Amino acid sequence: MPDFTDNLKPLYDGVQTLVDERARSKINVEELAKHLLSRDDFYERQKRVTKILEGEPLFSKKQNLNLSRPDRYHVGLARAKALRRLTLKHGWDDLDFRMAEYLVDEVSPYHLHNSMFQQTIREQASDEQKAKLMPLVDNYEIIGCYAQTELGHGSNVRGVEALAKWDPKTKEFIIHSPTLTASKWWNGSMGRTANYAIVVAQLLLPKASSPTTYVNHGPHPFIVQIRDMKTHQPFDGIVVGDIGPKYGYTSMDNGYMLFDNYRVPHSAMLARYNRVDPDTGVLTKSGHPAVVYGTLTYVRANIIMHSRLILARACTIAIRYGAVRRQFKDRDAPNPAAVPELAVLDYPTVMIRLLPLLATTFALHYTGEAMYNIYWGTRKSIESGDFSKLAELHSASSGLKSLCTSFAADGIEVCRRSMGGHGFGGYSGILPLNNDYLSKPTVEGDNWMITQQVASYLIKKMETVVKNPNAASKDSTDDLFKHYLKSRSSKVPVDIVRFGQVDDQAIVEAFRWRAAHLSYLAYEARIVNKGKWNNLMIQLHKLSNAYSQTFLISHFYDAVMKSPLSSPTNTVMHDLYRLFALNTIDSDSHSFAATNAVTSASLDRIPDVVLHLMTDKIRPHAIKLVDSWSMPDYLLESSLGRYDGRVYEDMYDRVHRHNPLNKITFNPDWRNEEIVMGSGSGTQQVLAKL
Amino acid sequence: MPDFTDNLKPLYDGVQTLVDERARSKINVEELAKHLLSRDDFYERQKRVTKILEGEPLFSKKQNLNLSRPDRYHVGLARAKALRRLTLKHGWDDLDFRMAEYLVDEVSPYHLHNSMFQQTIREQASDEQKAKLMPLVDNYEIIGCYAQTELGHGSNVRGVEALAKWDPKTKEFIIHSPTLTASKWWNGSMGRTANYAIVVAQLLLPKASSPTTYVNHGPHPFIVQIRDMKTHQPFDGIVVGDIGPKYGYTSMDNGYMLFDNYRVPHSAMLARYNRVDPDTGVLTKSGHPAVVYGTLTYVRANIIMHSRLILARACTIAIRYGAVRRQFKDRDAPNPAAVPELAVLDYPTVMIRLLPLLATTFALHYTGEAMYNIYWGTRKSIESGDFSKLAELHSASSGLKSLCTSFAADGIEVCRRSMGGHGFGGYSGILPLNNDYLSKPTVEGDNWMITQQVASYLIKKMETVVKNPNAASKDSTDDLFKHYLKSRSSKVPVDIVRFGQVDDQAIVEAFRWRAAHLSYLAYEARIVNKGKWNNLMIQLHKLSNAYSQTFLISHFYDAVMKSPLSSPTNTVMHDLYRLFALNTIDSDSHSFAATNAVTSASLDRIPDVVLHLMTDKIRPHAIKLVDSWSMPDYLLESSLGRYDGRVYEDMYDRVHRHNPLNKITFNPDWRNEEIVMGSGSGTQQVLAKL
Repeated sequence: MPDFTDNLKPLYDGVQTLVDERARSKINVEELAKHLLSRDDFYERQKRVTKILEGEPLFSKKQNLNLSRPDRYHVGLARAKALRRLTLKHGWDDLDFRMAEYLVDEVSPYHLHNSMFQQTIREQASDEQKAKLMPLVDNYEIIGCYAQTELGHGSNVRGVEALAKWDPKTKEFIIHSPTLTASKWWNGSMGRTANYAIVVAQLLLPKASSPTTYVNHGPHPFIVQIRDMKTHQPFDGIVVGDIGPKYGYTSMDNGYMLFDNYRVPHSAMLARYNRVDPDTGVLTKSGHPAVVYGTLTYVRANIIMHSRLILARACTIAIRYGAVRRQFKDRDAPNPAAVPELAVLDYPTVMIRLLPLLATTFALHYTGEAMYNIYWGTRKSIESGDFSKLAELHSASSGLKSLCTSFAADGIEVCRRSMGGHGFGGYSGILPLNNDYLSKPTVEGDNWMITQQVASYLIKKMETVVKNPNAASKDSTDDLFKHYLKSRSSKVPVDIVRFGQVDDQAIVEAFRWRAAHLSYLAYEARIVNKGKWNNLMIQLHKLSNAYSQTFLISHFYDAVMKSPLSSPTNTVMHDLYRLFALNTIDSDSHSFAATNAVTSASLDRIPDVVLHLMTDKIRPHAIKLVDSWSMPDYLLESSLGRYDGRVYEDMYDRVHRHNPLNKITFNPDWRNEEIVMGSGSGTQQVLAKL
Repeated sequence: MPDFTDNLKPLYDGVQTLVDERARSKINVEELAKHLLSRDDFYERQKRVTKILEGEPLFSKKQNLNLSRPDRYHVGLARAKALRRLTLKHGWDDLDFRMAEYLVDEVSPYHLHNSMFQQTIREQASDEQKAKLMPLVDNYEIIGCYAQTELGHGSNVRGVEALAKWDPKTKEFIIHSPTLTASKWWNGSMGRTANYAIVVAQLLLPKASSPTTYVNHGPHPFIVQIRDMKTHQPFDGIVVGDIGPKYGYTSMDNGYMLFDNYRVPHSAMLARYNRVDPDTGVLTKSGHPAVVYGTLTYVRANIIMHSRLILARACTIAIRYGAVRRQFKDRDAPNPAAVPELAVLDYPTVMIRLLPLLATTFALHYTGEAMYNIYWGTRKSIESGDFSKLAELHSASSGLKSLCTSFAADGIEVCRRSMGGHGFGGYSGILPLNNDYLSKPTVEGDNWMITQQVASYLIKKMETVVKNPNAASKDSTDDLFKHYLKSRSSKVPVDIVRFGQVDDQAIVEAFRWRAAHLSYLAYEARIVNKGKWNNLMIQLHKLSNAYSQTFLISHFYDAVMKSPLSSPTNTVMHDLYRLFALNTIDSDSHSFAATNAVTSASLDRIPDVVLHLMTDKIRPHAIKLVDSWSMPDYLLESSLGRYDGRVYEDMYDRVHRHNPLNKITFNPDWRNEEIVMGSGSGTQQVLAKL
């Protein structure tokens, strides 16, 4: 319905603002975009898939936040089915399909079927099992999930309580949940969707010498049909359901499941590497492939590359809106009445929150790229029988998972708060980003826990180098530690900033030195002084972060040194490296002083250099830098972060024309028990949901 | 329906765990609880009101997270009406009513009526206006809201665009929104509920000398009826509605509103202090009362006291669950097979996140108490004509608002991540806490913005003291700055930790010294070197935080020194002071070194002392310390944080017996377009909501 607000304009024109912002930077956006998004043809693929999704009304995100959680699952399943149809219709390959999932920005109830279920069968089923299962999996004849985590045990996989006991008489496994905490829990796609599950349970086999005594052979995977194909009801002896609303993942049916002495045939145990002889009940193992470590590196490289896009998305929204939004005038302006209010992004208190995060997106990019390259290199080494670099790789990837997902998760909230009130609005595009990403520091290895693996590796390494200082180096960490041991008695702190000049190479050395020094202190505490592991945990966590930072810094530095980008983009990228490095040092400066890595004088100079980098070097390019991340408006679903700067017009349109609550009239009088006066559900209907 | 899971128990008994935890601490919980919650009889009042609410099915929170946003408003309004009825039924006074709102833990659609609407009329309406309006307000005959913030202007109130132009012919004000960004926005209770609004608009009056020229007299409040009392439809010339879903505040109808030359009578302008003569069109002002500053202090004291309860709530949940949850065995245990897994709270990596936050709750408490005492003292001074302490107070309260709401908002997320996966579950009790609190660092003065007021005050103060070093001190800041100026040339850093002993008094001095030093640097940069304000903003923000920390530290120290608590509670409180202080120093240690406040040697020793304090001194009392905050299970609505430790049983009950999604059966086959097989809304109905 037309009304007097139809032709109103905002006080400041956001469209013109962004046009002006883009005009004043000479960065070649397309060049930088292709530089960042070339792997797997991401840049072109995104364009192609976005176009298709934008044309499908079912994939409109406009009402997502107005739906109840049960409806979100319902719609999520409808979308999952539609994605399957689009895949067939457009002949999408796996990368196209993943791109669509990413753009739809909602975890699909089919997600575990497409990922862990399929992958586990491919990697751990015997050829015979695969021949039977894979056609059903590929054609979605069955829908699967992966049931490992339990109510009582997440991080500690060896602690799972579900049991799979071999019955030699019937040649069946008896799957059983002995306690309440043995309930499978959190497992995606299991609550309402899946009819099959990979169930991880402790394998119990009778002792050969005493058949009534059972021996625990540790967690193993079993494939189990959990629901009837016709009625979709669970079988007797299985209780399964959805675990209800949670922070994010609204469309996903994370589930719970318990078994009451539920019998499955011998063929249920996935038998590629481990097999129970049905006649003797004896387990034979054909050793795990070393490639598992390589795969982990690949998964972690994916996590880093994903964190880069998450952070870039938050930065895109916050930086574009920061350029459009104006608030207060410069109090030092000669004639304040004559000037417009300042763009929020021009305040150093906003820049100091957003621009280092923008620099971080590039740091994450180059480290993610490096991890992929290392993965492919390692695969080759492994194929030629050389496993020497696996341990370093595994350790590096654990520490980086922890550090990079923390950067992204914390960064989202920093971006949000930088936007003032509208950062909290449903039209900000930040809500689903926040809700769905904030589990990442916890899942796939808790960020505080997995850093122990890094520290453990470094302590062992240092111990070896101390014992054999003249042995040949196996990797770059060996080199670093040898250098450290030789130089530590004569080490003096280094100037990284002097006469306003930044020494880029010295920065890399400072990070490496600090990591080596902290490794030595940890070695001393644990090996020399026999300190208790648990008492060292906080120190070890800091060590891991310091070590992981060296990767980010040195990969960024290397990339900047050999940048293929044209001018001025290469210069801006160099400044971003400096901003990232100096800001990281500043946020933990005592540690750089205490390890003799950097002079106090340099540390004191950092804030001024950072301010100069931000204000003069990076701010003018901020909009084009986020443009280069090429976030489609469809993905952002954000009034504040729109490419065209129509911030307020779009907010108003969403609120004034598409908010379903505005179609219902309520009676505010407390003496009137009936609430609804106009359309909408009646009060009794709504209250019945309580 | 009974099933085989009915009698399952968790692997570890959470109930017994908490019984044991409570048995090993000698803290007198009731004594400490009354010490913390005596003001306004909070402790007894909470018990009384909780009992009533627990008996009302409408106030059950169990299904809150399963309701759509429109339904959440609907239920929220029903609850608001029910609270009104309960108030009358039980003869609740205002504090009882506020307690009920706090416990229901959902912002009521009547909230703005009860707060800003009522308060503004009471403070700014003329006696005549009050006589007419207050009976209607008190009896809820009209429902009001407060419309100040606009789409384009939040922080900058002077920048609001809505106009109120005096028409001398008709003797009316013409309220008008000249642009889209002039739309009122975010205003609570306005979207669907209110029929009256206080509208803040720029008062335009004709110039006496040239009646066609209008002069802007700045923002003024007008009372405007916005909806018809019978149909509840907005009047012609007004567009008003709800701004849709947002982060938190789900039950609240934050609104938007625009005016098209909408005429209101002369009586609409609230006229206690400012009045337009209807015959001459001349504005007369009878100066604002100085009490406004005092009221601000009171509001800020409330914010600090509230932040203490918010943080205590997050800590209660995380610490109780951390004691119940077990994960991994101690790798240094002599016989790992024989010991149970460790309670998560026993890991230093968990303690370092939770116990400093627990200490912070007490720091916030004592500063909140001090602010109340200062408020009442200031009121007395003002009444006797002494305004000398107002400026210091105002500055202190701005800085503390910023610091304390950041502590609480950030602390919630730290607590959540400490809980692993279940911290993300709907049964954690953390979701509404997070969603509803995270706006606090932004609203009522953005935390990065208001720190400028503090810095501005300190710079002026330092300038005065530098100019007149021998003038009599007006307040404690003067004393500090004088001491600083006298001693700075001879200052040497101080040991705060030595031979394992903590020097409590020296800690207070270190914080004060640092604040003075940073004040001096800011004075130098701005006044001596004429630095641009905007370029100094980051430095000024840090200054404000450092200055505000001195309040938290010294009030905590004073409280510990004169503690009325019995042993061992007083000792534990002393240890909490040390933990809070040392952890705060550790997180910004370079600043304490760079300002010559603390020796490097002391800074290096802090991590060991902190570990010792946590492990040996505070951990044994952690459960009883959170018990003392007396959070009712009804408020927490958390399986993880239950008082009795029945964590897993309660999670299972909620999920297995009360999740509405589990009552619907879906067909997972993608070739089948029809989604629902069992009960529930049909697919077409659900998709129609998109």
